[in-house]
Amino acid sequence: MTAESAAIIGAGNTKFGALPEGPRALVGLAVREAIASVDRGLDRSVIGEGFLATLGFGGWQIGNASAVLAEQAGLVGVPVTRVENACASGGFALRSAVRSVEEGTSDVVLVVGVEKMTDSPSARRRYWLGVSGDTEWERSAGLTFAGVYGLIASRYCADHPRAREALSAVAIKNHANGALNPKAHFRKAIRTEDLAHAPTIADPLRLYDCCPVSDGAAALLIARGDIAHRFTDTPVRIRGMGAASDTLAVQDRPVLTEFGATRRSARSAFDAAGWTAQRIQLLEVHDCFTIAELLALEDLGFAPAGGAVPLTLSGDTARTGRLPVNPDGGLKSKGHPIGATGVSQAYEIFHQLRDSAGPRQVPGAERALSHNVGGSGASATVTLFERG
Amino acid sequence: MTAESAAIIGAGNTKFGALPEGPRALVGLAVREAIASVDRGLDRSVIGEGFLATLGFGGWQIGNASAVLAEQAGLVGVPVTRVENACASGGFALRSAVRSVEEGTSDVVLVVGVEKMTDSPSARRRYWLGVSGDTEWERSAGLTFAGVYGLIASRYCADHPRAREALSAVAIKNHANGALNPKAHFRKAIRTEDLAHAPTIADPLRLYDCCPVSDGAAALLIARGDIAHRFTDTPVRIRGMGAASDTLAVQDRPVLTEFGATRRSARSAFDAAGWTAQRIQLLEVHDCFTIAELLALEDLGFAPAGGAVPLTLSGDTARTGRLPVNPDGGLKSKGHPIGATGVSQAYEIFHQLRDSAGPRQVPGAERALSHNVGGSGASATVTLFERG
Repeated sequence: MTAESAAIIGAGNTKFGALPEGPRALVGLAVREAIASVDRGLDRSVIGEGFLATLGFGGWQIGNASAVLAEQAGLVGVPVTRVENACASGGFALRSAVRSVEEGTSDVVLVVGVEKMTDSPSARRRYWLGVSGDTEWERSAGLTFAGVYGLIASRYCADHPRAREALSAVAIKNHANGALNPKAHFRKAIRTEDLAHAPTIADPLRLYDCCPVSDGAAALLIARGDIAHRFTDTPVRIRGMGAASDTLAVQDRPVLTEFGATRRSARSAFDAAGWTAQRIQLLEVHDCFTIAELLALEDLGFAPAGGAVPLTLSGDTARTGRLPVNPDGGLKSKGHPIGATGVSQAYEIFHQLRDSAGPRQVPGAERALSHNVGGSGASATVTLFERG
Repeated sequence: MTAESAAIIGAGNTKFGALPEGPRALVGLAVREAIASVDRGLDRSVIGEGFLATLGFGGWQIGNASAVLAEQAGLVGVPVTRVENACASGGFALRSAVRSVEEGTSDVVLVVGVEKMTDSPSARRRYWLGVSGDTEWERSAGLTFAGVYGLIASRYCADHPRAREALSAVAIKNHANGALNPKAHFRKAIRTEDLAHAPTIADPLRLYDCCPVSDGAAALLIARGDIAHRFTDTPVRIRGMGAASDTLAVQDRPVLTEFGATRRSARSAFDAAGWTAQRIQLLEVHDCFTIAELLALEDLGFAPAGGAVPLTLSGDTARTGRLPVNPDGGLKSKGHPIGATGVSQAYEIFHQLRDSAGPRQVPGAERALSHNVGGSGASATVTLFERG
């Protein structure tokens, strides 16, 4: 990809949470906000292709859901492809959209992520979360996602002093950020005492170490880089993308506390941009559990093994710190509607880099990174963004 | 896309049918055959990306199945994306693979389609077929896929004399072709009397008008066009691709007997190649029901409305006719393991254009078209191929 190849010109995001809307309506809401956000307006006829990221579309339209996006976006006729890589569906759909734009046949491409997870029988809700874990060695043995991340956190806490404190610091930071985000599922700051009294989910992870089950949708409009200025004076350019896979079951990996897919994705993205980690001023990382934020900081190259503990405890990753991480509240507090998450991370970066993030604005950020993980690290994407 | 942009250098296809293997094993079998088929051999390290087409992965790994492809193909680390557009998943995955090759970061890209449909409780088997129909207006009203195509066939038969005869001719032709194909689900030629005595499924469609519920997988290796000759003297080049969407429910379309998604896809593909329909010597079309083959011939530009009836009754579309259609037996006789179908169509074309199709070889064909449909026309792809 070339430096001028693709840029975000508009973005939409429904509120995340337990919402009354079904998945069709959520798609429509996110698309309408994205189109309305384009500074100089956008005629739908310039949209030449669409991508839909969803794990289960609320169990409603499990197959063929891409046609629903075509209908809801007023784009019937235009090719739409559903992309599913579990919790990384959004990141992979964004990558597909950037490639589509680079191919040159479409001026603008639409990417939407959506999930409807509440308002279904609880068995089915667990089902939609569980289907992305390894079936043969994890699910069939009763190992849930919280269980897998609990195992990883146990190993990490045994290896690194003060790690449990750092997990709590991640939760407190992300809840503080989410409290400032009107779209967040949880808008409630929490204190150390709340964490201490919370029930254990999968030792050492307690309630506030785990992201919620959320409904929501997010949408992005990606334009060819050379025409982005037709739509806005402040596009947010995609400077690099990386994606990778790993084994599905964590037992098949050499090290439990490293996600190889994240490491490989980061290397590809930085190579594509010609950047190093030092150039990044703001991160959106995949904190489905607090331990995942610590792993991400290390796997992305911002800290050595165990180094995420002091980085977090020092306050550097706070919204007002040296390297703000998850200023929108992250999956932890903003919520995690599976297919929407990777798209919503780019929505946040779009606003942060354009100085339109309101009370949670990180001042002066020009370059950012988003990091989206599928399952417990079986796939990952890393995307690099720059204002201008 | 440019004329030299991408070429198939290897292809694999498991037998289609009610098979003992699960979806993981089917993926492995198809990949191994594809790699073994590369004339000058292929080291897996040149494969830079993978795409997996599947609707439900046998209900086994519904989310995150792309990691299974990475594992089965010995490609852990390489990015793999699951693409799902119902029965057109394979066509859309092929399109994604061609784009990936065109981007230039990978020398070779692997695309695999798979479905495991038998060997599951019958309720779940129906479920996997049904989920791709429109939920709100069709499924909830009890309308099955056979029902939708039955409605379309009723309209078509009312409009065009001898249409019911042509439907039977499609079934007889495709069963005759499948009888010559060692990979086909049904290897049984049928006669007019068999059709007449078969039970009605959804009037006017009878048993032999409907494709079976099959297991199977297919795999393709796509190389950058400029390096294809490193791997083989006879690559099969992709000359044009088109994809499009339509409304999910057929009630929302102006004409019941036209698939707009097929028409738009064909136009895009022919425009990209600079070809007209007259250049095509062999077709693989999406005959999930016999009526679908007649619609395809008209929507793809090979006959006017109603013209598929005389075209079929004349014998022109027979394997030995002027314009052979579905020489492998089509979905009707070869079988229709949802995610595998679009990939398997290209597998057949790969062998037909290389003169390696054995007893079902169409002599001298150099240019072919494949046509893959999602659901009852909600999405479609058309791909154009040429030997050399």
